[in-house]
Amino acid sequence: MHHAINLRDKLRQFDDRWSPRTVATFNGHDVMIVKVEGEFTWHHHDDTDDFFLVLDGHLTIRMREGDVELGPGDLFVVPVGAEHQPFAEHEAHVLLIEPTGTPNSGDPATAAPRIEL
Amino acid sequence: MHHAINLRDKLRQFDDRWSPRTVATFNGHDVMIVKVEGEFTWHHHDDTDDFFLVLDGHLTIRMREGDVELGPGDLFVVPVGAEHQPFAEHEAHVLLIEPTGTPNSGDPATAAPRIEL
Repeated sequence: MHHAINLRDKLRQFDDRWSPRTVATFNGHDVMIVKVEGEFTWHHHDDTDDFFLVLDGHLTIRMREGDVELGPGDLFVVPVGAEHQPFAEHEAHVLLIEPTGTPNSGDPATAAPRIEL
Repeated sequence: MHHAINLRDKLRQFDDRWSPRTVATFNGHDVMIVKVEGEFTWHHHDDTDDFFLVLDGHLTIRMREGDVELGPGDLFVVPVGAEHQPFAEHEAHVLLIEPTGTPNSGDPATAAPRIEL
């Protein structure tokens, strides 16, 4: 039997920031949820676009061309290679999609480990 | 300048059922929104998983092993090759992700055209 994945239920299962949890896989990608607060590092991905969909709260994605502001139900795809810095003044919850194995910081040395929920 | 995509704004721009609108692209995939109501055809995709995230309403994805029920904030990935039939008793709004060019019905002859929003 198959079951749907309820994102709110999954979000209740952890509380640390900037540590994505994988809730599904899709065509070689991890579908992840993450709680963010504060400032992440400036980084880029050489090999992949970066998918963000805000579920709760407000997220700013700083880019060299200017800030992208996202509230609940807002989606943004950072193009491959583009430098960006996610920032959230208050706690926000975000759906992310990246190829399985992509380091979230753009650098395997500083990346969060892959955690399945 | 880059801008976020507000899914509710995009959903206000059309009203036909089972006709996905592409709102972004991501790693060779179309990120689409669709309004559904009633029963779609049984179909499968030979080459891709099928990503569903319900934004509003209730969606049933009938599969040979049993039904998968999705409400708002519920996500389900139909595995590549698996037969499925989406069904919504009442209007529902869904975020879909499929490789660009994938026929939504599994068959190019009956597929909805690609429409960008």
